[in-house]
Amino acid sequence: MPRDGAPTRERILSVAERLVIENGFSATPVERVIAESGTSKGAFFHHFDSKVALARALVDRYVAADLGHLDRALATAQAEHDDPVERVIAFVRLFEEEADALMAEQSSCLYLAVLTERQLADVGTAEQIAAAVVGWRDAVAAMIREAYAALESAPTIDPAALADHLFVTFEGAFLLCRSTGDPTHMRRQLRVLRELVESLLRR
Amino acid sequence: MPRDGAPTRERILSVAERLVIENGFSATPVERVIAESGTSKGAFFHHFDSKVALARALVDRYVAADLGHLDRALATAQAEHDDPVERVIAFVRLFEEEADALMAEQSSCLYLAVLTERQLADVGTAEQIAAAVVGWRDAVAAMIREAYAALESAPTIDPAALADHLFVTFEGAFLLCRSTGDPTHMRRQLRVLRELVESLLRR
Repeated sequence: MPRDGAPTRERILSVAERLVIENGFSATPVERVIAESGTSKGAFFHHFDSKVALARALVDRYVAADLGHLDRALATAQAEHDDPVERVIAFVRLFEEEADALMAEQSSCLYLAVLTERQLADVGTAEQIAAAVVGWRDAVAAMIREAYAALESAPTIDPAALADHLFVTFEGAFLLCRSTGDPTHMRRQLRVLRELVESLLRR
Repeated sequence: MPRDGAPTRERILSVAERLVIENGFSATPVERVIAESGTSKGAFFHHFDSKVALARALVDRYVAADLGHLDRALATAQAEHDDPVERVIAFVRLFEEEADALMAEQSSCLYLAVLTERQLADVGTAEQIAAAVVGWRDAVAAMIREAYAALESAPTIDPAALADHLFVTFEGAFLLCRSTGDPTHMRRQLRVLRELVESLLRR
């Protein structure tokens, strides 16, 4: 029985995710993942053929959680607002309200750590992340198009690019937090995005 | 005489910058920097005591170029526009117009590569990057405040946070380009920012 009751594979992934987000992928030796997850080299390589296989599994798990987060936020915004303009604004506001809790939980984003190393981007992790990006883009762009349709004169900003700007704001804000050592920038940047979207849609 | 006429230290830095942006810092062995810059181990360690010293020198040089870029863009926007609202919009448009050339030159940003590795953030590079962030924030926020003052009813968005959103857009867009393999996202995201700022200031 593992110490905390979690199956070994999940325990390895949780520890590896934290270490990779904190330190980077190349700067995280497999030995450290093994030691901090209280497992053995044998058990590690039973679950993961290689460090690259670990990277793919980390991104798989992170993408699934990310898309789950999207679905919950869409459902909440949908349930709370019939007005498509207010729905888009409430959707962005959800992330703004969760920002401090997010930054208390993790210091940065796995996507940043994985994508800054070309060797990892080239073994399939970039495709996994691109699938998450497209999932967010399609869902959010659909909401934005409904809001545009409800306005007397629709804005000219491309809905897909505006939808991507949520991902861009998250990733850029993670980096702003890291460079300044101030995790409140995540909330402040999501607030800027929400206020800009309000100014665009409530004009 | 070095092969391309550039002093050895500069040649090492240029090669290292390209390799670190492409592959990450830990994933860039000193041996590869030495080989690709056509120098020797002795010459490398004459200029840099350690790999960490190389990281600090890389960030120093990148920050200086980044702040030089800011100054030129400020001077251009200032020279072209007396109207403080149009000046802010023109300032963002400059980066939008330069985006494709930027992405042809470099595949990502040194700040991303350096900040995703905590060991590097902790040896002083985060402070260097934070100084660049604050340089941009102060200059851009001052321009935004002048634009707000020229409006009948000033927007409520915090000028400093809106100024930071330019850095956030750059960094997030670099990551969007890397994840999708499509470098045109840099231009498209800077365009979204410019259009959002137009909508805010020209209402």
